[in-house]
Amino acid sequence: MSAGNGKPLGIIAGGGTAPLLVADAAIRAGRPVFVVGIGGEANPDIAAYPHEVLKWGQIGRMQSLFAKHGITEIVLIGNIRVRPDFSKFRLDFGAVRIMPKVLGMLANGDNDLLSGVVKLLGELGYTVVGAHEIAPELVASVGLLGRRAPDKAAGTDIDKAMSAARAIGVIDAGQAAVVINGRVVALEAAEGTDQMLDRVARLREAGRLKWSGRAGILAKCAKPQQDLRVDMPTIGPKTVKAAAEIGLAGIAVEAGRVMIVERPEVIALADRNDVFVVGVAGSQEKRG
Amino acid sequence: MSAGNGKPLGIIAGGGTAPLLVADAAIRAGRPVFVVGIGGEANPDIAAYPHEVLKWGQIGRMQSLFAKHGITEIVLIGNIRVRPDFSKFRLDFGAVRIMPKVLGMLANGDNDLLSGVVKLLGELGYTVVGAHEIAPELVASVGLLGRRAPDKAAGTDIDKAMSAARAIGVIDAGQAAVVINGRVVALEAAEGTDQMLDRVARLREAGRLKWSGRAGILAKCAKPQQDLRVDMPTIGPKTVKAAAEIGLAGIAVEAGRVMIVERPEVIALADRNDVFVVGVAGSQEKRG
Repeated sequence: MSAGNGKPLGIIAGGGTAPLLVADAAIRAGRPVFVVGIGGEANPDIAAYPHEVLKWGQIGRMQSLFAKHGITEIVLIGNIRVRPDFSKFRLDFGAVRIMPKVLGMLANGDNDLLSGVVKLLGELGYTVVGAHEIAPELVASVGLLGRRAPDKAAGTDIDKAMSAARAIGVIDAGQAAVVINGRVVALEAAEGTDQMLDRVARLREAGRLKWSGRAGILAKCAKPQQDLRVDMPTIGPKTVKAAAEIGLAGIAVEAGRVMIVERPEVIALADRNDVFVVGVAGSQEKRG
Repeated sequence: MSAGNGKPLGIIAGGGTAPLLVADAAIRAGRPVFVVGIGGEANPDIAAYPHEVLKWGQIGRMQSLFAKHGITEIVLIGNIRVRPDFSKFRLDFGAVRIMPKVLGMLANGDNDLLSGVVKLLGELGYTVVGAHEIAPELVASVGLLGRRAPDKAAGTDIDKAMSAARAIGVIDAGQAAVVINGRVVALEAAEGTDQMLDRVARLREAGRLKWSGRAGILAKCAKPQQDLRVDMPTIGPKTVKAAAEIGLAGIAVEAGRVMIVERPEVIALADRNDVFVVGVAGSQEKRG
């Protein structure tokens, strides 16, 4: 179905543009791809690649598609906005066959969806690889992404925000924090980064947060225990736009462990709005 | 103006009913009270006590009121929803006299409003005492407040939620966390507990959080560095009502360091809605 001289790659695609970038990177590396879009989540633009949209639970169909395309290596990438409702699973024969394993996982209290999916894919004979292994250019490195650089006050907020993001990662709660003029004003958990930023905007509108000029930092880092193959924290143009609209000074991300999607647009937006985006050295070494 | 045989007590009152409870406790102990209500915040029911409503910055007026009533001991109690806007301060002569000190504090980067206010009141010759010293019955003790008790699953969530609340206290971010079936789903920062609970409700409505029956815990504890004289964490009927509406199993508070306002109503609401409210032993000893 598609040409290429490398090993074919399966892409299980949630929402956003990251799955498209991974597909492009694989194709550039000479690998044929086949994209399985998750119904209700996947970007319609996966239509540009060999693909099929499946519902949660259509395991057998997925297996036969991947078999047909000679795929044993898989990337899972993209947003999942809605946790799957097990009662609405469309269980095909392939799914029914692995049900004992799924039920065993659920009985063990393993409620981490992604690690469960990775385990299952492993049992089905697939190797799960990280999107960053296919497209390393997606990952933040140390340094600035645009023209603007943090000043001294911003540097202090960066340190504090990275510490806060790290602290909530240690308790497996979230990946992001906002610090403004030395004060931790928002911590991310189940709501995700976008809604957390929206909250900061509303607190400012309501007069409950006050600052002048651009100030404050959104920091984002990976949890220590995060499986970067399937669950790398991400920022993109939407993040920069939200930070700019709120009046933050900039965004700091953990280098090597946070993904930047649509990098050219991220840089353009940062420059246009005079906010900075900076990759900072991994916390692990600094804190050790 | 008021009768009583004890030392008169000044009450600087933010919103809610806690200032009224402190006034009642002082009067029961035979102390005359004078309540200075913060304009835009104080409960209109302070009208039942000798009182006057002042704007932020009317320091001279406050001093003369307290002097008139022989007050040197002060309680600061009640919610402050809106951080004062220094540009809108109504600076009377008393305020102008202490301005050098205020400016010094601001220049030192001391942006913790309450500790600044306590320092200033000390400089003006007042002793700030904790509401819990006047009305110890306001504070949670170890054990249940209503009929319902946590089951084993709830016990696990209590431990995790208290750990999460403690972790964000250590970074001076917030006092409260929600854990549902082992997952940290919300962490409090500048938005406060009510808005955090509202967020959990909306995440459930949107299908982003799912659980069946009553499950999950709101935990609330004091930050390690919190000045309990002026800033004790609080739960009340609104908290119980919100927890019940969301479908949480219960509320856990750090005994000795969290205040329970309108305790009879808290207990009645907990029993009526079949949620529990439990005081658990202070984290400090457990974690040390």
